[in-house]
Amino acid sequence: MTVHILTIGDEILIGQIIDTNSAWMAQQLNLIGARVMKKTSVGDTLDAIQNGIRAALIEADIVLMTGGLGPTKDDITKKAIADFFGVELVFDQPTYDRIVHMFEKRNIPIRESHRIQCFMPSNAMLLQNKMGTAPGMWFEVDGKVLVSMPGVPYEMEYLMEYEVLPRLKQRFQGQVIAHRTILTVGTGETEIANRLELFEDQLPENIKLAYLPALGQVRLRLTGIGDDENLLNQALDQKAAELESLIPEIIFGHEKEDLESAVGQMLRERGLKLGLAESCTGGYLAHRITSVSGSSEYFMGGVVPYTNQLKMKLLAVKEETLEQYGAVSEQTVIEMVQGALPFLNVDIAISVSGIAGPGGGTPEKPVGLVWLAIGNKDLIVTKKIMSGKDRLKNIHYTAIMAMDLLRKFVVEHYIIERV
Amino acid sequence: MTVHILTIGDEILIGQIIDTNSAWMAQQLNLIGARVMKKTSVGDTLDAIQNGIRAALIEADIVLMTGGLGPTKDDITKKAIADFFGVELVFDQPTYDRIVHMFEKRNIPIRESHRIQCFMPSNAMLLQNKMGTAPGMWFEVDGKVLVSMPGVPYEMEYLMEYEVLPRLKQRFQGQVIAHRTILTVGTGETEIANRLELFEDQLPENIKLAYLPALGQVRLRLTGIGDDENLLNQALDQKAAELESLIPEIIFGHEKEDLESAVGQMLRERGLKLGLAESCTGGYLAHRITSVSGSSEYFMGGVVPYTNQLKMKLLAVKEETLEQYGAVSEQTVIEMVQGALPFLNVDIAISVSGIAGPGGGTPEKPVGLVWLAIGNKDLIVTKKIMSGKDRLKNIHYTAIMAMDLLRKFVVEHYIIERV
Repeated sequence: MTVHILTIGDEILIGQIIDTNSAWMAQQLNLIGARVMKKTSVGDTLDAIQNGIRAALIEADIVLMTGGLGPTKDDITKKAIADFFGVELVFDQPTYDRIVHMFEKRNIPIRESHRIQCFMPSNAMLLQNKMGTAPGMWFEVDGKVLVSMPGVPYEMEYLMEYEVLPRLKQRFQGQVIAHRTILTVGTGETEIANRLELFEDQLPENIKLAYLPALGQVRLRLTGIGDDENLLNQALDQKAAELESLIPEIIFGHEKEDLESAVGQMLRERGLKLGLAESCTGGYLAHRITSVSGSSEYFMGGVVPYTNQLKMKLLAVKEETLEQYGAVSEQTVIEMVQGALPFLNVDIAISVSGIAGPGGGTPEKPVGLVWLAIGNKDLIVTKKIMSGKDRLKNIHYTAIMAMDLLRKFVVEHYIIERV
Repeated sequence: MTVHILTIGDEILIGQIIDTNSAWMAQQLNLIGARVMKKTSVGDTLDAIQNGIRAALIEADIVLMTGGLGPTKDDITKKAIADFFGVELVFDQPTYDRIVHMFEKRNIPIRESHRIQCFMPSNAMLLQNKMGTAPGMWFEVDGKVLVSMPGVPYEMEYLMEYEVLPRLKQRFQGQVIAHRTILTVGTGETEIANRLELFEDQLPENIKLAYLPALGQVRLRLTGIGDDENLLNQALDQKAAELESLIPEIIFGHEKEDLESAVGQMLRERGLKLGLAESCTGGYLAHRITSVSGSSEYFMGGVVPYTNQLKMKLLAVKEETLEQYGAVSEQTVIEMVQGALPFLNVDIAISVSGIAGPGGGTPEKPVGLVWLAIGNKDLIVTKKIMSGKDRLKNIHYTAIMAMDLLRKFVVEHYIIERV
């Protein structure tokens, strides 16, 4: 069962809104074994909409349209659909009654535009929309299906969940599609691909591996297609386990998890308290850590000593150290951790000092050079990073590397005994 | 000049990532007078990519592709393009040298897959990508243009800004399009529209006003079209000045400026030193302030005292205050400013304490309640915000309101005499 998602609306084409609908729709469709083969966005013109419908129906079994339905003037989707089928728009009394009832309850006056909204292509089967005024429309086209829904996310989601997906599920008996996503950090796409080369070559025909890289992280996605859901899930689980056994030390999570939640969970499980002393990341690492709800359980606080004076005052970094080695040095980040541990009264402290750029570099200490340290009262580990010239990218990359360092430090030095 | 945006990648079709690239691209294209007429997303197969290119080139003058370029095996975009044009993939030594150089600097080993990545369709003009390993590719097709870029947002954005947009601009012929963008903060779209109603009604036919709202901020963009560049610019300058005179107190900048740069510039001009004491924003405000290159001139440092203990230890907030009023209170943020001024040795300090959510609310102090304070040794001003239930949105909104508070405080209390 193949699907084409067709979104209508100039607001998408001028970049005023980001289309989040289609990602949600694709996920839901995958779960019932439907495969989105294409997505198209077109503008609010009769021609664009009709050409969009025509092209989509050639290739896909199902065309799901969103957008272009609503009480304002620029609604031409219904006219485009009616013209496409060569049918009239006819007044639908039940829809009008429903709108009147809805508005009376909320004490909103009915306008002429709401009456106009109740004219529907005569061949439409209407799908009741409990979240808004515009119903969805279902059309049968030579064994294929065309569905039109409003673009407002919660209206579209309601219609999909209660009207569209159940009907599609009943009608099409497609193959099952399933995914496993494994999240890695700190190792590049190429090196991972190298380590997984044999694994990938030996994957069965119906399972594919994709690399989805982002800054400092790579998501590995196994996608399987099959006739039997149980067998497919078994095969995917087995292959995912095999993959994980090949690169265990770089995996931090699964599916939609993020790195800050993963390291947060590790700290929580072990009852560890974390503190931060960040210079060049300027509070961004603290922000990432505290973007997780409930992070106050393990994050005690941080300092952002941007000046040397504050590095000395807050973290007891020695003046000689700063003079001899500079603020961006292994010695300084070590002393920052040593100072932060008692100052913030935490079990583990991370420190960062670097040259985020684009200015401030020297031949010995170029832009992109960052020193990281992590430690507890017994041990301090350091790491040097060489990043690029882009300030924000350096800050983001450093924060990810710092969280990776934290992850490894905790795994290595705080073993949980599970009985 | 019409544009078709073609995005390549199964990850979009299965809904694993939301396509934010095309909205950004559409905005940038609009600014140079190009109109996106259609957006299509296709999967990672030779057929889908080639059919996508073919269909897009029929209708649009320019086809911009993103995605499907990278060092791993699932890269078939280049093969699809080469086959489409009927050309060979040839090894590009300069690209290889650049990758080798980049990797040597970072001490990362070069692999065979990087060599493979350097094979390019022989008719491609390569666009240098300083943000990654895969160059962009520019193709001339019977007076039309096809461009292929990596899908990683910052790589695509770099290529668009430095390689693609300037070339398209040069090529584009027609009427002159010009813009003036005026940036406001702290006042909603509806209220601004209300104050500008008459102004908007009296705009000449060839100048339009657009409201581009974002969290806590609204950009007002005047777009003019005309035959004569000088006359158009004069008219736009005049209308922009008129607009500004109607809402002077909410304007913080122009064009691409951002709020953190604008407040930074104000501090720099006055030689003021800033310090931060942030609880619920968890370092995000410091991050915004330090995302500006050169911010170390005016930003001395900050503390993120997430616990009450650290609020007392670092900022000398009184235990009685925390007990009587709670950490999220006007009294606490006032004491945080009073403590931060000497502790961080700064002229101006900002403090933040709130309930970012989604957990932790009570009937008297619901999620979204935030107290802000700003002050110097003579005066402290406070502000209460009621935001929503979304943690990240609350943090972002609070940081913007804090910067707006800083802007107003500096404007009001630190007058620069210009002779």
